[in-house]
Amino acid sequence: MHNFDNATQFIKEADQLLVLSHLHPDGDAIGSTLAAGHLLRSLGKKVTMVNESPIPQKFHFLSGAKDIYLPDNISEKFRYVVALDAADQARMGQCSRLFTRDVQILNIDHHATNDQFGTINIVVPTAAATAEILFDWIEFMNVKWDLPLATSIYMGLLTDTGGFRYSNTTPKVFRQAAQLVELGIESHVIADIVLESTTLDQLRLLKKALSTLQVSANGEVAWMVLKREDVGPDQEMEGIVNYARNIVGVDVGILFREVGDQLVKVSLRSRTKTDVGKLAKSFGGGGHARAAGCTIHTDLSQALQQVLAYLSVERECDQ
Amino acid sequence: MHNFDNATQFIKEADQLLVLSHLHPDGDAIGSTLAAGHLLRSLGKKVTMVNESPIPQKFHFLSGAKDIYLPDNISEKFRYVVALDAADQARMGQCSRLFTRDVQILNIDHHATNDQFGTINIVVPTAAATAEILFDWIEFMNVKWDLPLATSIYMGLLTDTGGFRYSNTTPKVFRQAAQLVELGIESHVIADIVLESTTLDQLRLLKKALSTLQVSANGEVAWMVLKREDVGPDQEMEGIVNYARNIVGVDVGILFREVGDQLVKVSLRSRTKTDVGKLAKSFGGGGHARAAGCTIHTDLSQALQQVLAYLSVERECDQ
Ligand SMILES: [Mn+2]
Ligand SMILES: [Mn+2]
Repeated sequence: MHNFDNATQFIKEADQLLVLSHLHPDGDAIGSTLAAGHLLRSLGKKVTMVNESPIPQKFHFLSGAKDIYLPDNISEKFRYVVALDAADQARMGQCSRLFTRDVQILNIDHHATNDQFGTINIVVPTAAATAEILFDWIEFMNVKWDLPLATSIYMGLLTDTGGFRYSNTTPKVFRQAAQLVELGIESHVIADIVLESTTLDQLRLLKKALSTLQVSANGEVAWMVLKREDVGPDQEMEGIVNYARNIVGVDVGILFREVGDQLVKVSLRSRTKTDVGKLAKSFGGGGHARAAGCTIHTDLSQALQQVLAYLSVERECDQ
Repeated sequence: MHNFDNATQFIKEADQLLVLSHLHPDGDAIGSTLAAGHLLRSLGKKVTMVNESPIPQKFHFLSGAKDIYLPDNISEKFRYVVALDAADQARMGQCSRLFTRDVQILNIDHHATNDQFGTINIVVPTAAATAEILFDWIEFMNVKWDLPLATSIYMGLLTDTGGFRYSNTTPKVFRQAAQLVELGIESHVIADIVLESTTLDQLRLLKKALSTLQVSANGEVAWMVLKREDVGPDQEMEGIVNYARNIVGVDVGILFREVGDQLVKVSLRSRTKTDVGKLAKSFGGGGHARAAGCTIHTDLSQALQQVLAYLSVERECDQ
């Protein structure tokens, strides 16, 4: 299956490994890092886990989450590296400063855009999550499952499928989930902490954003605006744009955030019709057809006008 | 398995059947009704589907949803009835007026409180949904799956597990989901329509409610208030109380709704500690430990005071 023979050989050769993932880590990045950490330690290896960005509070309950270090706090260099859920080396941030010159990288990822930067590359674009690939590798090696390992893998499956709601939720994902729940993980506790929990600050921002909600005359585009004095850290913004997209009849939901002087961040989501990746690209941003973003160097009202003009929205408002 | 032999015999004897579920039907009630309808028709039976309440808009996309009638629109009487997801006959509303005197009822349900009102009773409290029991029956009878059947069953599993987030999400539920997705259902479309969609009215209410959000001094109780002029139909209220419950650190979330003169509906949700079923019962309401509700015959401020006093909340507000 895949390159699991080579991958298994790779870790057999190493005594000490660096495990890392991409910056601004999501549930799959963190879950995969922790799963690989557990796995390698159970095989008797010395493991250092690292990430360019701090681990968000809501993932701290995961066993080992506090042992994922920032690269600045590590002085050693590593010859053996396991890179997870990272499409290229730039996504690792400063972590690559911890590599020796003769570094060997095991690159495990599910992004189709992965540039095969590893010495060994296990890139499986059909996998819903990097955690799904790790699940298969664990089974391949016949490693004994325990709860921390199962919980980390579940985290990756749960978050990268949007709680089993995205189109990448294959029968295989559901079967892996079944097996993990059978092992005794508390899937409902995990879902509650990671998918259902919110903060007062997030709700305050949501209220602000909702009070600016407007819908185009044809009902297909909905947008919200946050002014500079309202805007919080990126984490708090998570999910707010979906409130616009989720309105029945709406295809494109947009959140405009004034993040600086003449600096507006635009988050875009679409249901089925509009390719918001294209839209974002035309403004110098990126993403894919259903979720994308860009930064526009104008004031708020200019940014609104430009994006809505692209979508041929007549600014007749239905608040 | 269970009473499937008797149930199968039951439908073999009948040529014409009435299929029904409980009033204010949820995804499991509607999914189970449609699944049983498809199933019985594929076995050559004449089927009438009925429900005391209109089917909510968001379920109309389901094949057959528009063929579920209100009892008032049916003039025939039925000797053979399949009752689904209904714990007792009162839950059927006026549908029982359509029964003949010598009615025979096949009662399929997963509520532990089911009072075994049927001629044949298949009550399986360990099932996450009535749809899960129907899945097993379909396999037992070796009926050929098709997309409308698979989609209806998926609807029941999806909604009664809160999108695979509740503690009733067993390995069996995940395995059934895997099998249904394998049959080709568009699980992500179903999830989008049923779990992610909202309306402008719902967002307006959410904004109103959020603007009243308060948290107790110890951070464990959060509540919101909707005045009579804000309150919409019950459907629009769905989920609003969860915004209070979901705040990190909060155990009890409450929504107070003024629905009339000296009439306040109270929705209660809790995470792990407080038994809100008990709370609701002490005010003449009902529910279970994690989700409950009651109606209090006072004005809003009195209702607030009484419920918060029960929870020993000091009314120091943190807005
Ligand atoms: Mn991933
Ligand atoms: Mn049910």
